[in-house]
Amino acid sequence: MPELRKDPVLGRWIIISRERRKRPTDFLIDEPKVIGGFCPLCPGNESSTPPEIIALRNGTPSTSNTSDWQVRVVPNKYPALIIEGALDKQGIGLYDRMNGIGAHEVIIETPGHNGLFSEIPLPHMSLVFKAFRDRLNDLQRDERFRYVMIFKNHGKAAGASLEHSHSQLIALPVLPRMIVSELSGAQSYYHYKDRCIFCDIIRQEIEQEVRVVCQNDSFICIAPFAPRTPFEMWILPKVHSSGYCNLNDSSLFDLSQVFSECLRRLNCCIPGVPYNFVLHTQPLRSGELKHYHYHFEIVPKLTSIAGFEWGTGFYINPLPPEEAAQFLRECLDN
Amino acid sequence: MPELRKDPVLGRWIIISRERRKRPTDFLIDEPKVIGGFCPLCPGNESSTPPEIIALRNGTPSTSNTSDWQVRVVPNKYPALIIEGALDKQGIGLYDRMNGIGAHEVIIETPGHNGLFSEIPLPHMSLVFKAFRDRLNDLQRDERFRYVMIFKNHGKAAGASLEHSHSQLIALPVLPRMIVSELSGAQSYYHYKDRCIFCDIIRQEIEQEVRVVCQNDSFICIAPFAPRTPFEMWILPKVHSSGYCNLNDSSLFDLSQVFSECLRRLNCCIPGVPYNFVLHTQPLRSGELKHYHYHFEIVPKLTSIAGFEWGTGFYINPLPPEEAAQFLRECLDN
Repeated sequence: MPELRKDPVLGRWIIISRERRKRPTDFLIDEPKVIGGFCPLCPGNESSTPPEIIALRNGTPSTSNTSDWQVRVVPNKYPALIIEGALDKQGIGLYDRMNGIGAHEVIIETPGHNGLFSEIPLPHMSLVFKAFRDRLNDLQRDERFRYVMIFKNHGKAAGASLEHSHSQLIALPVLPRMIVSELSGAQSYYHYKDRCIFCDIIRQEIEQEVRVVCQNDSFICIAPFAPRTPFEMWILPKVHSSGYCNLNDSSLFDLSQVFSECLRRLNCCIPGVPYNFVLHTQPLRSGELKHYHYHFEIVPKLTSIAGFEWGTGFYINPLPPEEAAQFLRECLDN
Repeated sequence: MPELRKDPVLGRWIIISRERRKRPTDFLIDEPKVIGGFCPLCPGNESSTPPEIIALRNGTPSTSNTSDWQVRVVPNKYPALIIEGALDKQGIGLYDRMNGIGAHEVIIETPGHNGLFSEIPLPHMSLVFKAFRDRLNDLQRDERFRYVMIFKNHGKAAGASLEHSHSQLIALPVLPRMIVSELSGAQSYYHYKDRCIFCDIIRQEIEQEVRVVCQNDSFICIAPFAPRTPFEMWILPKVHSSGYCNLNDSSLFDLSQVFSECLRRLNCCIPGVPYNFVLHTQPLRSGELKHYHYHFEIVPKLTSIAGFEWGTGFYINPLPPEEAAQFLRECLDN
């Protein structure tokens, strides 16, 4: 049984997902094992994954486990958290722990083994974003969970262990510290100004233009003012909304268009660059929040993280976002 | 001029340390360049570094730049922040920035080019810890600075760019977010319990024994309850103290003894393992704080950081600290 433990000073939760390795040296860096040859995520190999939770066939949800899917969601075969059981929250002296209950799912974004996420046609990419939303809304009904993390590791250096394009979802019985901090920062601003800080950021970015990468009627992609790495990008809905779970079907295409464009621009600047993206959204069942604004953060894996960053949460970035946005805007002139 | 920028939501500061690279691909991961052959940190090559800030010769401070030093502190030749100038704090709409004013120094720990920090004899290692303290106390007089980060990157994977054993120091005009969070967590606990949380942790760890790696009269090394990585270790003074700047000369040897022992145990478990350590101490000129407790955090570079950790500050660790501590205690039986 995996375990959730809380750092008593910082309130940071970590997962102890015990792997029985015999010697200490077995814990040396795991290079992600990109399995060549047989791919468990390819059509025809549906029996190599646990049975599907949901799949889209001709745009319609089903769970037939047949090979005619467009987007397929399956439980992770090696989950960090497990779905069955009670939380069993306990104190151990001044420490807090609970059972590692949660969901860990894989969203297979395309049947094509070599398909790049950024190159998926927009109507198909819309189905991926629809699957994200529908899984969020389904997991929201499980009262044990407080948050759902949706993220993607693209490329070996960014942690991808399978070549076939996929994202992941982890449902957590606790709020991640990063989200707690974001909510609290945004709440303070709202308290002071009576406005959503992200709405203000969008307004200022559209006015100043220098950090805008691309946009359409519904979404905008910016290089954030204080980026952790070169070419960090955020995608936000232009109209205030705190929960990705409430995204309308009619906005899926617009989101896909901005997402696809900024990833293609990134890939044009730095071909094959590894990256992670993470959806930041409201806690489950929080209802619409006036002070929070869902968004995606896309972080290219370019610089290595050393002692300074570990200890401080303080990053050194050699590229101002204004120049990154210019590089990104000027690429892909085709 | 480097620049400090603050994320308006999280309050996270980042350094934009502009490097003029011409193409986007120039920002691809910098493998640390371990320079072979000529070493600018070796005795005899003193003119290859900026003139020394302080050095210890026969245990006594001097600045002669001669080659008979034991420990030598020099300005970083490629500093992330620069020492000369005014902060010039500015708002840009809702954003905050200031000039990248600070100090960035290198502490050369031993004249021996191949000397491992963990193998430095204890009387010599005491001089390194003395140098840390004396630099802290000197920089404390500069009213522009609010915090001094002292850290070490050991091994290429942990970010070391020179083979010759050294640590680094960065003086900052702002408080790093990690320290703000630690202070605030420790403050809440103190408010509730009227006791220092770190003192309580030490008491519980000594009682439970399972996470203790090693200790002497003055210091203890533990595997923390909620470690981010396998073999993470913390070293804390047993008697309450919030500021490393107040460390007595008589405690330098005890600190060196615990530090050296736990690093040698780590290295015995996983030979040649890269690691970072970071000193967490009180803000400059804060005076002694009842709720805070200085300590070193040693984080081996074993697992790669992927999307999930980036987005959440949530870590997955395959090794419970109780088992890590046992591995560490049982190693080095010689």
